[in-house]
Amino acid sequence: MSYIFVKDIKEHLGQEVTLKGWVRNIRHSGKLLFIIFRDGTGDIQSVAFKPELGEEAFEAAKKLTLESSVILHGIPKAHQKLENQFELAIQSLEVVQYAEDYPISKKEHGPDFLLSNRHLWLRSSKQWAVLRIRHTVYHAICEYLNNNAFIRFDSPILTPNACEGTTTLFELDYFDEGKAYLSQSGQLYLETGIMSFGRVYDFGPVFRAERSKTRKHLTEFWMMDAEAAYVEHAENMQIQEEMIRFVIRSVLAKCDQELDILERDKEALKRADAPFMRMTHYEVVEYLRTKGSDLDHESDLGAADEVMLTEGSDTPIFVEKWPKAIKAFYMKRDPENPDVVLGSDLIAPEGFGEIIGGSQREDDHDLLLSRMQAEKMPIEDYQWFLDLRKYGSVPHSGFGVGLERLVTWMSGIHHIRETIPFPRMIYRIYP
Amino acid sequence: MSYIFVKDIKEHLGQEVTLKGWVRNIRHSGKLLFIIFRDGTGDIQSVAFKPELGEEAFEAAKKLTLESSVILHGIPKAHQKLENQFELAIQSLEVVQYAEDYPISKKEHGPDFLLSNRHLWLRSSKQWAVLRIRHTVYHAICEYLNNNAFIRFDSPILTPNACEGTTTLFELDYFDEGKAYLSQSGQLYLETGIMSFGRVYDFGPVFRAERSKTRKHLTEFWMMDAEAAYVEHAENMQIQEEMIRFVIRSVLAKCDQELDILERDKEALKRADAPFMRMTHYEVVEYLRTKGSDLDHESDLGAADEVMLTEGSDTPIFVEKWPKAIKAFYMKRDPENPDVVLGSDLIAPEGFGEIIGGSQREDDHDLLLSRMQAEKMPIEDYQWFLDLRKYGSVPHSGFGVGLERLVTWMSGIHHIRETIPFPRMIYRIYP
Repeated sequence: MSYIFVKDIKEHLGQEVTLKGWVRNIRHSGKLLFIIFRDGTGDIQSVAFKPELGEEAFEAAKKLTLESSVILHGIPKAHQKLENQFELAIQSLEVVQYAEDYPISKKEHGPDFLLSNRHLWLRSSKQWAVLRIRHTVYHAICEYLNNNAFIRFDSPILTPNACEGTTTLFELDYFDEGKAYLSQSGQLYLETGIMSFGRVYDFGPVFRAERSKTRKHLTEFWMMDAEAAYVEHAENMQIQEEMIRFVIRSVLAKCDQELDILERDKEALKRADAPFMRMTHYEVVEYLRTKGSDLDHESDLGAADEVMLTEGSDTPIFVEKWPKAIKAFYMKRDPENPDVVLGSDLIAPEGFGEIIGGSQREDDHDLLLSRMQAEKMPIEDYQWFLDLRKYGSVPHSGFGVGLERLVTWMSGIHHIRETIPFPRMIYRIYP
Repeated sequence: MSYIFVKDIKEHLGQEVTLKGWVRNIRHSGKLLFIIFRDGTGDIQSVAFKPELGEEAFEAAKKLTLESSVILHGIPKAHQKLENQFELAIQSLEVVQYAEDYPISKKEHGPDFLLSNRHLWLRSSKQWAVLRIRHTVYHAICEYLNNNAFIRFDSPILTPNACEGTTTLFELDYFDEGKAYLSQSGQLYLETGIMSFGRVYDFGPVFRAERSKTRKHLTEFWMMDAEAAYVEHAENMQIQEEMIRFVIRSVLAKCDQELDILERDKEALKRADAPFMRMTHYEVVEYLRTKGSDLDHESDLGAADEVMLTEGSDTPIFVEKWPKAIKAFYMKRDPENPDVVLGSDLIAPEGFGEIIGGSQREDDHDLLLSRMQAEKMPIEDYQWFLDLRKYGSVPHSGFGVGLERLVTWMSGIHHIRETIPFPRMIYRIYP
C-alpha cells in the first residue's frame, strides 16, 4: 500500500505520508486552508499554507467542495493542545473529483429526505459512528460465542412452514414446491444443530411483514439465535448476561470516538456492566402496580411498562417465568408452577426496551406434540422438530438477540432505522 | 458449569469429570462396555467395567442405543498407544433418553433419504466435520477483513430492483410498494459503503431462482462481498490472494481432526498456500487450445475448462482481463485495451472451480450511465448508484466469495449441498 489510513496516523508522526479520502469540511483564511479530511477510518484536520503549496495548487485546493475526493501528501503531527488529536501539514494534493452541489448540507433535513438519500447520508459522522458500533457489536457477539464453544450454524431463510401463522410472513413461489416463506427466526432449526454440535448460533437477516410503523420496527433486521444442549433456564440467563456484558466492554474499549460523536453517556454504559437483576413476571406486575400501573398477571409488558420497570436500574433486568398463555408453544413449563414457562426477556435500561428473548425448550416428545396439536399446527410439516425429542432428547435452552435493538441501546440513539445500512420499513424499500 | 467438554479433556487427565452428550456407537464384550461418546465438541472412547459400575447400572448401560443421550461420570486418561487420543474410564452414568430405532444406520442411504432426514444426518461425523470447517472458514474471512480495515456493512436482502433481469430472481409483494426481490449480491450497495467507511464487506445469504440441478448449485447460499475505495485491479487481486491463503492456514491450524475425518489431502491444501498465478483470459484460451480445447476468445470458461486450466497447478489461478461482452456493466475497462475489463475470476485447484469473482468498478459517471442505458436498465431506480460517481467518485474495486464453494474446496467433498446446514435446491425446501 502506497498510502496510510488516518487510524494509523500516530505511528507516522513527522514522516511524509499519503492519505486518500474525501473532504468533510473546508474553510480558508488568507494564506491558510483548513480541510477536515476523512478516509473512512477516521477524520483529521489538514492545513495547507499557500507559500508551501504554491499559488496554482492553493487556488485549485480552495475550489474543493464538500465530499470532493482528494489525495493528500503531507506530514502528520500531534495537536498542540488536544491529546490524541493530530493534524496534517499538507505538502501537496491531488484532486480526484470535485463534487458539485452535494445534496446533504449542514442544515436540518427531514427524515424522508435523508432516507431517500441513505446512500449519501451514510457519510455523515453520526451514521458513520452508529454503523461502526454495529460492526463492533456484531463481532463482540461472535467472539463471545466462539470462545464459549458455540459453532456458527446458519439457519435457512427460505422455509416451507408458517410456524406462527402467515399474517406477518413474506411469501413467495418456490419453483414447483409451492409457497415458501422468509424466516422470522432460525430457532427451530438451531435445535437440530445442538444435537450435532452441542452449542450453535446463527446470525442473519430475519423478516417480519408487520404493518407496524414505530421507531422500533424494521421489516428486515438481523437476529442472532443461540441454542445449547444440556443448558437449563438459569444457565441460559447466565450466558446471556455474560454475553451482553462482554458486548458493553467491547463497545467501550473499541468505540470511544464513535460514542463521543453520538454524545453517548459512557458512564451509563459502564454502570450497565454489573450483575443483572432477575424478577419473575409476577413480581414485575406487582412492582409496576405499586407505581400506578393497572397491568394484570396475564398480560405482556408494553413499551411503557418496560420503561417504568427499568427506571432507576443501571443494568438490564431479566423478566422470567411468564404466563404460559402469552408465550410460545415450545417453551418448557416450570416444574414448580405449570402455569408459567421457563422463559425470560431481557429489558435494557435507559428506556431501550427488550433486547433478548429466551427460554428453556420443551424436551418431552408427547408434551410438545400435544401443545402443537392444541395450536392446530400442521404436525407433518414439523415431524423433523418432533424427531429431536425422539432420538436422544436432552434438556436445552436458547435465546435470540435483535442486533439493531442492541445497537440502538449501545449508541444511545432514538430510531432503530439508523442502525442498519439500508432500513426496510413498511413505506420504505428504496434505495 | 458442572461438566466439561470433550475438547478440553486433556486438561483434566486423572480427575473425576462429567460429560454430557450422546452415544455415537456402542459394543460390549463380557464385562466390558465400549461407548463412542460425543458431545458436539469431539468424540471419546469410554469404557465401562461391570464390577466397577455394578450389575444393575451395567445392564442399563448395555441397553443404550445409537444416539441415546447420556451423562457420563468418569476419569479421562491418555490412550496407551495413540498420541493425543484419550479414553474415559466410566465410574457411573445417567441415561437421559434411550433412542429407539434411529433411522440412520451404518448402511448406505441414498441422498434423498439423507436430505429428507437432514435434521438427523447432521450428526454424522462427516457432516459434523464439514460444518465445523464452514464455521472456521466464515470466521477466518471475517478475521482477515477486520484486520485489514474492512467494516461489516450488511447489504439489504429485500431490494426494489431487478438488476440483471427477473428470470433468476425470487419475487414477493412488499406491502403497497409493489414487487420486491431477494438479493443476488450486495455489491452495488457495498459501493455506497466505501464512500463512508473506506473498506466494507457484507456476508449473508443470497438467492438465485435458477433451474439448475448440478452438484455446485444452491438456490440459497452465503456470499461475502468486499469493496474498497482507492483500490485498483492489481491490489484487488492481492487482497483476494492474501485472504484465501489466510483461510487455508486457518483451516489447517484449527480443523486438523475434521480434515482427517473427511480424508482430505492436507498436503494439497498446504501447497495451495503459495503465490497464485495470474493469466489473462486471452492467455488462458490460448493455453487451453494447446491442450485440445476449442474454446474461443469471446467465451466464458465452462467447468471442464476450469478443471483443465488448473490441472498440474498447486495453487488457485487468477483469470483476469475478460472480454467486456461477457462481464457485467459495472466493470472498468482496461485503459490499455478497451475490449477487456479489469476483472478477475479466481479458480481453485483440484477441480473445485471458481471461488471468487472480482473487478475494478467503473468510476466515471457518464461512461457508467451510457452502459446502463445500453443495457436498458431503469436509470431512475439506480440513481443512487450513479450518485456515487457524482459526489467524490474514486477508483475502487471489490470481489465476492461464495462461502459454500470455498468450503467444498477446503473440505475436499464432492457436493455443495453438504456445506450448508439446510440446503435449498430446486426440488428441496424441506426440512
